Amino acid sequence: MNGERGPRERMVFSAAQLIRRDGVAATGVRDVVSHADAPRGSLQHYFPGGKEQLVIEAVEWGGRYAANRIDRFLAGISRPTPARLFAAMVRQWTDEFRTIGYGQGCPVAAATVDGGSTDATRAAAAAAFAAWRAPIVRALTDMGVPARRAPSAAMLMLSTLEGAILIARAEQNTRALTTATRELGPLLDSFVPPRP
Amino acid sequence: MNGERGPRERMVFSAAQLIRRDGVAATGVRDVVSHADAPRGSLQHYFPGGKEQLVIEAVEWGGRYAANRIDRFLAGISRPTPARLFAAMVRQWTDEFRTIGYGQGCPVAAATVDGGSTDATRAAAAAAFAAWRAPIVRALTDMGVPARRAPSAAMLMLSTLEGAILIARAEQNTRALTTATRELGPLLDSFVPPRP
Repeated sequence: MNGERGPRERMVFSAAQLIRRDGVAATGVRDVVSHADAPRGSLQHYFPGGKEQLVIEAVEWGGRYAANRIDRFLAGISRPTPARLFAAMVRQWTDEFRTIGYGQGCPVAAATVDGGSTDATRAAAAAAFAAWRAPIVRALTDMGVPARRAPSAAMLMLSTLEGAILIARAEQNTRALTTATRELGPLLDSFVPPRP
Repeated sequence: MNGERGPRERMVFSAAQLIRRDGVAATGVRDVVSHADAPRGSLQHYFPGGKEQLVIEAVEWGGRYAANRIDRFLAGISRPTPARLFAAMVRQWTDEFRTIGYGQGCPVAAATVDGGSTDATRAAAAAAFAAWRAPIVRALTDMGVPARRAPSAAMLMLSTLEGAILIARAEQNTRALTTATRELGPLLDSFVPPRP
């Protein structure tokens, strides 16, 4: 995968992966350069704003990645409902945790919690959550959720998913995630009014 | 408040407060000693296991604090329902964010996300979530939620609350939290079967 990307793109990707694992404060720019197999001096060259710029771009990458996944999930569901979309979003995490372990969480969450974050990083995290929410709101509206309720449903989906990711990592099992899918699904489908 | 506590207790409290704000990696033991107004050498004296021991005790403190709050919330609700308990749990956070700002989150979440965490810290976070969940499960059962469903309801409450805290901090507004209360409340009350 790295072979197809330039060093700048690889560094943003590597920063996101290291932040997912270690948080912002514990992620050093040298670790990012090394993980990305980028030439020395790449940080100064590509990221004149230093670590903060790199962290912000990693958080933005996380928001774009999550938003793109929504469209991928929808394409894989034959008759999409709010519960089925949420189940697909959760399944991405249960699959990852079960196959490669609980070492890595959400980079946007890490950038929010972590002391290495500045106001600009925090703002990037808010923008990433908004970017992630937008295709969910569109999808819910397409499924028949009234436009005035879709933003609340999307917000609830992201809150529950983010918290369940966190608890699953602490507990090193997927119970919080499977519970979220099972218990929240019927509520999410109830956002679609019955057809007359 | 500090005056009533010994230096050991103050250091655990201070560690929890600094971890809430800065995360584990960015919280230095000197900062904790200084914040706690503890004598130099206190760390070695009271915490021979070093920073890891201090972090673990801070996370345990967080779990006990959250668990104790559940009983306080219940005492303040005249006719408790699952939705009213959840609203009280969320309100603690909306009140704090609105009055003192968004600078401090959940210490258990920080210990989970943050790279400073070790396996022992992660296990302490899992234990803290379990300690927090136990009085919620008891309360839900007392309210009439069937014993086999109460653990799922409690897990859903904590997942949604933790995620909403995170998003609220990123967005610097309480919308994720107020949405959680409004949208999840009816589902939580539906866990209580109607009386025959």
